[in-house]
Amino acid sequence: MNFHALKVTRAENFPEWYQAVCREADLAETSPTRGAMIIKPWGFGMWELMQRDLDRRIKETGHENYYFPMLIPMSFIAKEASHVEGFAKEMAVVTHYRLKNVDGKLVVDPKAELEEPYIVRPTSETIIGDAFSRWIKSYRDLPLLMNQWANVMRWEMRTRLFLRTSEFLWQEGHTAHADKADALAHTMRMLEVYRAFAEEACAVPTMVGEKPENERFPGADNTFSIEAMMQDGKALQAGTSHYLGTNFAHAQNIRYQDKAGEMQFCHTTSWGVSTRMIGGLIMTHGDDDGMRAPPHIAPRQIVIVPMLRDKPEDADLMAYCETLQRELNAQSAFGERLRAHLDTKLGRPAEKRWDWVRKGAPIICEIGPRDAANGQVTFIRRDALREGEKVKSHGLPRGEFIAAVPGLLADIQEKLRAEAAARLKDNVRTDITSYDALKDYFGTDEDGPEFRGWVRASWARPSGAALEDVEAKLKALKLTLRNAPLDQPKSFAPCLFSGAPGVEEIIISRAY
Amino acid sequence: MNFHALKVTRAENFPEWYQAVCREADLAETSPTRGAMIIKPWGFGMWELMQRDLDRRIKETGHENYYFPMLIPMSFIAKEASHVEGFAKEMAVVTHYRLKNVDGKLVVDPKAELEEPYIVRPTSETIIGDAFSRWIKSYRDLPLLMNQWANVMRWEMRTRLFLRTSEFLWQEGHTAHADKADALAHTMRMLEVYRAFAEEACAVPTMVGEKPENERFPGADNTFSIEAMMQDGKALQAGTSHYLGTNFAHAQNIRYQDKAGEMQFCHTTSWGVSTRMIGGLIMTHGDDDGMRAPPHIAPRQIVIVPMLRDKPEDADLMAYCETLQRELNAQSAFGERLRAHLDTKLGRPAEKRWDWVRKGAPIICEIGPRDAANGQVTFIRRDALREGEKVKSHGLPRGEFIAAVPGLLADIQEKLRAEAAARLKDNVRTDITSYDALKDYFGTDEDGPEFRGWVRASWARPSGAALEDVEAKLKALKLTLRNAPLDQPKSFAPCLFSGAPGVEEIIISRAY
Repeated sequence: MNFHALKVTRAENFPEWYQAVCREADLAETSPTRGAMIIKPWGFGMWELMQRDLDRRIKETGHENYYFPMLIPMSFIAKEASHVEGFAKEMAVVTHYRLKNVDGKLVVDPKAELEEPYIVRPTSETIIGDAFSRWIKSYRDLPLLMNQWANVMRWEMRTRLFLRTSEFLWQEGHTAHADKADALAHTMRMLEVYRAFAEEACAVPTMVGEKPENERFPGADNTFSIEAMMQDGKALQAGTSHYLGTNFAHAQNIRYQDKAGEMQFCHTTSWGVSTRMIGGLIMTHGDDDGMRAPPHIAPRQIVIVPMLRDKPEDADLMAYCETLQRELNAQSAFGERLRAHLDTKLGRPAEKRWDWVRKGAPIICEIGPRDAANGQVTFIRRDALREGEKVKSHGLPRGEFIAAVPGLLADIQEKLRAEAAARLKDNVRTDITSYDALKDYFGTDEDGPEFRGWVRASWARPSGAALEDVEAKLKALKLTLRNAPLDQPKSFAPCLFSGAPGVEEIIISRAY
Repeated sequence: MNFHALKVTRAENFPEWYQAVCREADLAETSPTRGAMIIKPWGFGMWELMQRDLDRRIKETGHENYYFPMLIPMSFIAKEASHVEGFAKEMAVVTHYRLKNVDGKLVVDPKAELEEPYIVRPTSETIIGDAFSRWIKSYRDLPLLMNQWANVMRWEMRTRLFLRTSEFLWQEGHTAHADKADALAHTMRMLEVYRAFAEEACAVPTMVGEKPENERFPGADNTFSIEAMMQDGKALQAGTSHYLGTNFAHAQNIRYQDKAGEMQFCHTTSWGVSTRMIGGLIMTHGDDDGMRAPPHIAPRQIVIVPMLRDKPEDADLMAYCETLQRELNAQSAFGERLRAHLDTKLGRPAEKRWDWVRKGAPIICEIGPRDAANGQVTFIRRDALREGEKVKSHGLPRGEFIAAVPGLLADIQEKLRAEAAARLKDNVRTDITSYDALKDYFGTDEDGPEFRGWVRASWARPSGAALEDVEAKLKALKLTLRNAPLDQPKSFAPCLFSGAPGVEEIIISRAY
């Protein structure tokens, strides 16, 4: 018997549970535009707060924000395609610039065909690289550190709210450096910014490492990622940072005059985090009652639901709740003004309470006339909602509650982080050392994706055809190579795939 | 002899001066994408701060932020076009979703043609209206108050940085209400939000009024605007707020069940402010030395330029400047942490100083070894840069300077506002009461746009063909009707155009 707020539990059907959280927490919904979503206030509010936090970190590392056009001339894309293998060609193409009325019907005006089509940016390397080639003249202009917050579009076939949508929101950082050492150090610096952002703001601890050759961004010399473990044991790539070598610099002639007066190619980097992270938040923190928003990025950290009864006493109750909200909002949490909300919408208090449970507001206060009369606050903590099947309420005198709230929010943030950290720590198996054992472990899951977590194994880091062979073997088990953690041992077991001497440990798992 | 930092003055050639400010203050530049711009950090930084201020005001009036898809199915646009006269058809049309390689050349894949093309949003009324029709069920769901920050695209023929670009950034608010009174009151509330934002954050006072029929947003019952007076006397529409009646509700079936159980059409509003405002800022506050950024939205409010000489004393000087920056940044201004910047870029201090003058940082400190030794701060105020031809420097002991800075910034903000307010107040002529007089006044300017300011005149508020006639007469003088100020007298002079009894005063001017 499911006593939870969602009709489907994680254990019953994880993908359906995910959809239920998106819907019941009112985070986003599908739209009439194929594969694109409508992000609703509770989802967008989290994105705004994630954006604010990450933007601060990006600026603190010396970057400035720019805005580049969303339409990219097709010739730019063609230039990149000729340099880059594995370049994806599914993109939205703008071919015309006018509609016209024909017999009362609106059609594309065939006379308004563009000489050169435009592509809706799938990423902005090419148009930003073109600007870099104009802006950078001398070593004095380096490093050039920029970032952009933008919408991008990739024509995905199978889409899923937040996780894979044709249009999504992201930031893309692009930098140019004088040499490899500086560019690579910067690639790693931004990877660490992502790790800290995910862990500190989103309460999502991640595995930090380098992607194998076959999973690199097309055109990159090295791709690094942070990988988060979802509650179904799958991995979610939550951010990537690329060292692009001089590949894009060659394609776009990004050069500088060094101190000796010689022309040199720049070394460039790029890195991005997107609204996909919200999907990761859901699958990291959600439970069978809905979403649990980490307080740091919860659009409303405390929600006050007054138990109004359409009676004269309501006025006193409202006055009490308004004062409570005002006093809470005079406090700070996580270095910002606290975000307390008084829910005055029409509707039954119990329904409103459950709405906020499903949304995952960190603290929900239910204030009745007795609380108001006694100067009490009755509240629930969303991170520890139930004791057994029952919802667990707490009570505190108003003054004590107000004083306790910043600490409570910090505690909830840390509890969510610790829960996710323990999941990651406890579910990376290191005792699977052969392909047969891997097959036994993952292959028994015939009926669906039972929780398996990740495997960390030694491998010989094959390349070319040998790597393709590894990929095919893993694909047969619906597995992928995630990354080689930065933190590596000194010696290695033999390669799980070939038995050859191991040179690196790598994460193997199912993934989004 | 022009002793200023820009090669062209406002008096010599205002349009060229405008381009020079955009370039020399490094605000934005043209891009390889037709009509679209690259917004550079100093311009984008202002936009970010404008966005933060306006977003707060929009949220304080009860709105929540959503994000809708940038591609809109063509059928949505067709539905609107059939309801709306004067509907513009210049838009970017996405017709294909894939490229392919043919003999090593990247082309649009003809097999990947969309069944229904998509339009890059020129505005989002249709796709948001579609969602409203699904979301709104009962009077309890009203008012529905939303906002979106987004990029939009209109295929403009003649473009100009910030003022008219094919792609621009804006916010678009969309709301649905139970009746006309509530919707109209909300239209006016948001108009006042815009007025206050423009005046308080941007130091741009505006004329607030209603657009005449011929200047309404297609599909609106009433369009209101804030109009700012540029330094060449032209008007710039800096924000609009529309009461859409039930027009869009009928087109998209946005209905609700009222308390009596009857189905009713919603009354809707929409309103927007865009990156165009940055063009308005330039033409309001810029001078012959470049931009002057209002401190409230200046990305860096104080810039410290150390007079480094590549000598051992540099270390002491840098330490002094770093302490100064840290102490400044511990202060607040306009309710936010102060933004002081230490310019450590390579380059000659004098060049760096002039870069910041052209960008219009409100306070620029030039700190030499003597300042450091004496605990002094030497600075210039960008709002009062010169005395005669000479740059005017001020000096204060460090402690006094730091304590004075929040007040100094507030004073600069107010001086810029007052200067613009005086321009608006002093240059609206009310003594021109006939078309011949209008022609004499504006028509003498044969050689180019000399400063004329605006005319405020009575008119009979004609409609239909009579209004078209007025429009044509004004067009012959390159004039347009701007708005009918909200603040109207009790009685009216005869109509400037027809001599019939006047019913309203209206602003006539040249405009961007």
